[in-house]
Amino acid sequence: MSTMSGNTFGTIFRLTTFGESHGKAIGGIIDGCPAGLEIDFDFVQKELNRRKPGQSVLTTSRTEDDKVEFLSGIFEEKTTGTPIAFIIRNKDHKPEDYDQLKDAFRLSHADFTYQEKYGIRDYRGGGRASARETAARVVAGAIAKLLLKKIGVSITGYVSQIGSVKLEKDYQSLDFQQVEKSQVRCPDENVSAKMIKLVEKVKAEGDTVGGIVKCVIFGVPVGLGEPVFDKLHADLAKAMLSINAVKGFDYGSGFKAAEMKGSEHNDVFEKREGKIITKTNWSGGIQGGISNGQDIYFRVAFKPVATLMKDQETVNSAREKVILKGKGRHDVCVVPRAVPIVEAMAAIVLADHLLRLRAARV
Amino acid sequence: MSTMSGNTFGTIFRLTTFGESHGKAIGGIIDGCPAGLEIDFDFVQKELNRRKPGQSVLTTSRTEDDKVEFLSGIFEEKTTGTPIAFIIRNKDHKPEDYDQLKDAFRLSHADFTYQEKYGIRDYRGGGRASARETAARVVAGAIAKLLLKKIGVSITGYVSQIGSVKLEKDYQSLDFQQVEKSQVRCPDENVSAKMIKLVEKVKAEGDTVGGIVKCVIFGVPVGLGEPVFDKLHADLAKAMLSINAVKGFDYGSGFKAAEMKGSEHNDVFEKREGKIITKTNWSGGIQGGISNGQDIYFRVAFKPVATLMKDQETVNSAREKVILKGKGRHDVCVVPRAVPIVEAMAAIVLADHLLRLRAARV
Amino acid sequence: MSTMSGNTFGTIFRLTTFGESHGKAIGGIIDGCPAGLEIDFDFVQKELNRRKPGQSVLTTSRTEDDKVEFLSGIFEEKTTGTPIAFIIRNKDHKPEDYDQLKDAFRLSHADFTYQEKYGIRDYRGGGRASARETAARVVAGAIAKLLLKKIGVSITGYVSQIGSVKLEKDYQSLDFQQVEKSQVRCPDENVSAKMIKLVEKVKAEGDTVGGIVKCVIFGVPVGLGEPVFDKLHADLAKAMLSINAVKGFDYGSGFKAAEMKGSEHNDVFEKREGKIITKTNWSGGIQGGISNGQDIYFRVAFKPVATLMKDQETVNSAREKVILKGKGRHDVCVVPRAVPIVEAMAAIVLADHLLRLRAARV
Amino acid sequence: MSTMSGNTFGTIFRLTTFGESHGKAIGGIIDGCPAGLEIDFDFVQKELNRRKPGQSVLTTSRTEDDKVEFLSGIFEEKTTGTPIAFIIRNKDHKPEDYDQLKDAFRLSHADFTYQEKYGIRDYRGGGRASARETAARVVAGAIAKLLLKKIGVSITGYVSQIGSVKLEKDYQSLDFQQVEKSQVRCPDENVSAKMIKLVEKVKAEGDTVGGIVKCVIFGVPVGLGEPVFDKLHADLAKAMLSINAVKGFDYGSGFKAAEMKGSEHNDVFEKREGKIITKTNWSGGIQGGISNGQDIYFRVAFKPVATLMKDQETVNSAREKVILKGKGRHDVCVVPRAVPIVEAMAAIVLADHLLRLRAARV
Repeated sequence: MSTMSGNTFGTIFRLTTFGESHGKAIGGIIDGCPAGLEIDFDFVQKELNRRKPGQSVLTTSRTEDDKVEFLSGIFEEKTTGTPIAFIIRNKDHKPEDYDQLKDAFRLSHADFTYQEKYGIRDYRGGGRASARETAARVVAGAIAKLLLKKIGVSITGYVSQIGSVKLEKDYQSLDFQQVEKSQVRCPDENVSAKMIKLVEKVKAEGDTVGGIVKCVIFGVPVGLGEPVFDKLHADLAKAMLSINAVKGFDYGSGFKAAEMKGSEHNDVFEKREGKIITKTNWSGGIQGGISNGQDIYFRVAFKPVATLMKDQETVNSAREKVILKGKGRHDVCVVPRAVPIVEAMAAIVLADHLLRLRAARV
Repeated sequence: MSTMSGNTFGTIFRLTTFGESHGKAIGGIIDGCPAGLEIDFDFVQKELNRRKPGQSVLTTSRTEDDKVEFLSGIFEEKTTGTPIAFIIRNKDHKPEDYDQLKDAFRLSHADFTYQEKYGIRDYRGGGRASARETAARVVAGAIAKLLLKKIGVSITGYVSQIGSVKLEKDYQSLDFQQVEKSQVRCPDENVSAKMIKLVEKVKAEGDTVGGIVKCVIFGVPVGLGEPVFDKLHADLAKAMLSINAVKGFDYGSGFKAAEMKGSEHNDVFEKREGKIITKTNWSGGIQGGISNGQDIYFRVAFKPVATLMKDQETVNSAREKVILKGKGRHDVCVVPRAVPIVEAMAAIVLADHLLRLRAARV
Repeated sequence: MSTMSGNTFGTIFRLTTFGESHGKAIGGIIDGCPAGLEIDFDFVQKELNRRKPGQSVLTTSRTEDDKVEFLSGIFEEKTTGTPIAFIIRNKDHKPEDYDQLKDAFRLSHADFTYQEKYGIRDYRGGGRASARETAARVVAGAIAKLLLKKIGVSITGYVSQIGSVKLEKDYQSLDFQQVEKSQVRCPDENVSAKMIKLVEKVKAEGDTVGGIVKCVIFGVPVGLGEPVFDKLHADLAKAMLSINAVKGFDYGSGFKAAEMKGSEHNDVFEKREGKIITKTNWSGGIQGGISNGQDIYFRVAFKPVATLMKDQETVNSAREKVILKGKGRHDVCVVPRAVPIVEAMAAIVLADHLLRLRAARV
Repeated sequence: MSTMSGNTFGTIFRLTTFGESHGKAIGGIIDGCPAGLEIDFDFVQKELNRRKPGQSVLTTSRTEDDKVEFLSGIFEEKTTGTPIAFIIRNKDHKPEDYDQLKDAFRLSHADFTYQEKYGIRDYRGGGRASARETAARVVAGAIAKLLLKKIGVSITGYVSQIGSVKLEKDYQSLDFQQVEKSQVRCPDENVSAKMIKLVEKVKAEGDTVGGIVKCVIFGVPVGLGEPVFDKLHADLAKAMLSINAVKGFDYGSGFKAAEMKGSEHNDVFEKREGKIITKTNWSGGIQGGISNGQDIYFRVAFKPVATLMKDQETVNSAREKVILKGKGRHDVCVVPRAVPIVEAMAAIVLADHLLRLRAARV
């Protein structure tokens, strides 16, 4: 049996999460949030609602009634600078749904590796590997967003691809007000409709499909990030890859940069309204690991959900071949629900580096 | 003025680097390397030589005579389990080359952000943002490779793309012995020749070009990685994005996963020779953030070198428009030299998680 | 306003506490506790009861009904190796008791420094500086004790001094079964009686009195502690000085060592039953920062409780002179109640170093 | 064999040390020192000289020619905010002196525990357990002192006791200019003379003797320290107990507090020249773990040096009884040389908490 580690993220704005999907509660402690920040509890709860399952026909119909309870660190709706602890009680226990999972290793899940590594596996759910853990991240991300809002930083994610349906438009030409109006969180009406059609088709097949979330951050001041290991984009990459089902990350020019020449890719500096800006932004708002004041944008690739409504062959813990029946309530495409999680992790990274910048100015 | 942070990487196998490109020395401390590991000093020096400039006509002709000196933690060619300190003296100071950089912000470099953030900038070079810092990583990576070798883990990187020239073959069909024989570290002779031709053409234009390094890790045991924030691939992503000029990372199916269906993407488990393996490996050897015993493979995208042999318009610290003249000795394509750095950072991540796994079994 | 830090203790067995004395709840997360440890919930609750106020006429009559609720990390009464979160709800809010404290800085309390530093002070209690925070430490300490018990380590604290009444006997001649039978946790009946008499006299005067807790740890294996900064006794010292009201720490020969000669103080090694032991134990079971297998013993000095039942002159936040009236329910002598806290912090240090030792054997 | 940990001290102002007493060099990295601090290299070297052996007839005659070389983080005599690496080459290798130590465990040394724990022991010296490691602390402490000096903080240590010879005077009545004029670093001429006489007597006997260093810190602003685990005095305690041969620490009233009543011990607040001060200072300048602006003072107890010029019985690694001959060059009383080390560790703690305070004000 092994002990788990890696339950904490961040250096100054630090989130430690706890809880299994089928235990009493999940939750976390945010340590290092500055004092005096007004907490809009409705906003926090709304953010949490954005990630919950059962928001549309496209996602699972489980109704997790996730209510966050804050236990400390907030007094008269303001943070006190002390650790902010919060819990979300678990409610939706129907262990019978999980009976067949007792022994079988679900394909492309954490079941096999978790069992091999820790020796103890709560077959009723994914334990700490469950996507439910991300609810705690969304709560912390909401606090981080409130902190960032005070200096004019806003973070918007949207779905730019589901399966082969791609939103080709540049983010500058999109109306971000449309994101939440789309069932798939794609701000372009036509593309959104195509994506919905695709998801419905895939659902009818009992299958699932992957996609891409794009995220844009406006209003970031110059100076966030450190030039060696803790480059801003390196911490964003880790944050994104730490989200379940993520397979890739790139920022600015991203993978396209591999095909570019220096003369195309270089962002020419110029002075505009007293500030130094760049004419183009292949750098994605980050140079030498440090934000340069331009928009930060990045992509996050998600694999298709591994749980299908089809029977699949696998192996059980006795190492025998078994058939895993397709049942239960699962997302056909997790990408739209992943948008608030991507935003939350981005907010945590930005808030942490904002505080690191301030702390370094001593 | 601000203090820099983020000079340490890893949790148990921890590397802290120090040094500016134009100071007395660069170097580092490796803390947490187990006792009793035999150090092959020739191997360490060879690894260091692999990243040094001036290895071929394709790269810069500066001859950095990088000799690593170990100061502690090794006794009679074996590690003692105490901190391993090492230094590499800086020698190649020709400040006159840097005169024009005193004021001008080089395009798509760290100059502007570094100056804005820290207030102090050693214009003679990139300071801590210099790629020279990666020499310390290669030394630590060599130690990590020696540690991993003992349990049969090997790490091989190669160039899979330069500009539009791509190596389409799967890694399984390549002969990795060929990597070091190719001037561009591409193991396919034909593709290598095309890449060289492209780099020569770009060089003649005074331009530069980007590319992709692919890295494969064989022999990884089941169990490396943690299921929440410190997923093995999340730490690999951070490690890779912390390398200068990297714009993207994906592993296993990567960005391709966005277009796939669950029924295609799921890796079917089966028993082979007493072990549980997967028939396909879209998971890239990692499931739920934990290695599953299959090959780990990932891609790292590099942007084109920002320093050109062409004149470029920019802004200086007085915020005036200036022309940056193309001169000096710089890489046309940094990707081949990046291969040992990618391998080194992968080795550090793997070594750290190997020790975390062992430490967790208590 | 400032952010608080330093809410976490330990490196592998890590406790993070949260909560203010007058908020919703206090609690903590224990990260790094090995999997498979049986949790005796009655034992944990009993430990918690040992520190609660109102246990005897000598201590305050507030009845904190401290019930610990575990939220995660324990499944079927065994730890799973994942973070163990627990909460203790706050109940005993009688803000009227605290009215006069709204403005006045209590003498020799954290009121003044806390207000000056953080700018926000919950005058209803000490906030994070409240001794109530130590309840979370006792819960974590109880888990640590269960872990240590498995390898035969036991920790016993007792009161060796209150005011001028001292227990002169060596710990070897004491019957530790008597500790919990004494109202002042002094295992010698005569000395205990004198201490009780003294405390009653001091109480009648409306005054308070200090004292010393001595703590002995049996069964520690050789090898706990690190030779440089994290010497076992250095971590014990920090742990003890982090307990409210503690003014000093010494171990083994302690302050007495200053008067000794090397020839008296040196502990002669000899072989007994195949093991190397020392004839004397001035070293206090620790040599070069590492446990040597002998008993570890140390002393912890507590100042008298600062809240008196007498009127005292002080200053308020408007910097005016005010009289602080002696009222409320407070301990006359906190030292007996401190015994379980001393033991808990010792257990956390030992558990952490035990896991560090195991983790280092890789 | 085990890996060593605990080679780093501090959270923002962080010192990592490396090196064995008989390897190539010792040294360290100071990470987190603010940019723009002027470095007076002479001062640093002088501090280093204060701790070196061979300063008087009272101490060992080995002449360690300790020259510190800075490798990074300082440009034009100012810190740049990047890691400051420094090395001190080892020179004084006379392995023949250590021949008999190859197998024998020196009494009350780290030899036995180090061997048992790590399995590898460099018998030529204490390895990482050698007091030589403290030279690196003195270098970092000198940098910390320069940082503290800028805000008016000064740190003075002196010897207040050797054996039974005690300096009873209060620190307020002492002339600190006299400290460095005394061979035993005791600022009172009469007591100093008695101490010297005692040390000479003990030396003639081939014996050694312990003592106490007292340390006073003037000019500390209100607000250093955190109220829970990282109380300022808790971090000072750890820092002091991490120095070789230290057995105890107390601050302010210290162990005396155990005998005091609350009405005696409470420090009455009053307003003086617009500031809130305390009439008495039993609190030792720290309340609730946070500095209150009054002088900080504490005591550090040292055991007698364990290496004698007398033959002593011990056990060797084969677990046989052997006689350890008294020879070599060793201190009779290490306490005077410990003064700069005590000051250095205090400076590191204060500098770290100063930066933590600034960092928390965001």
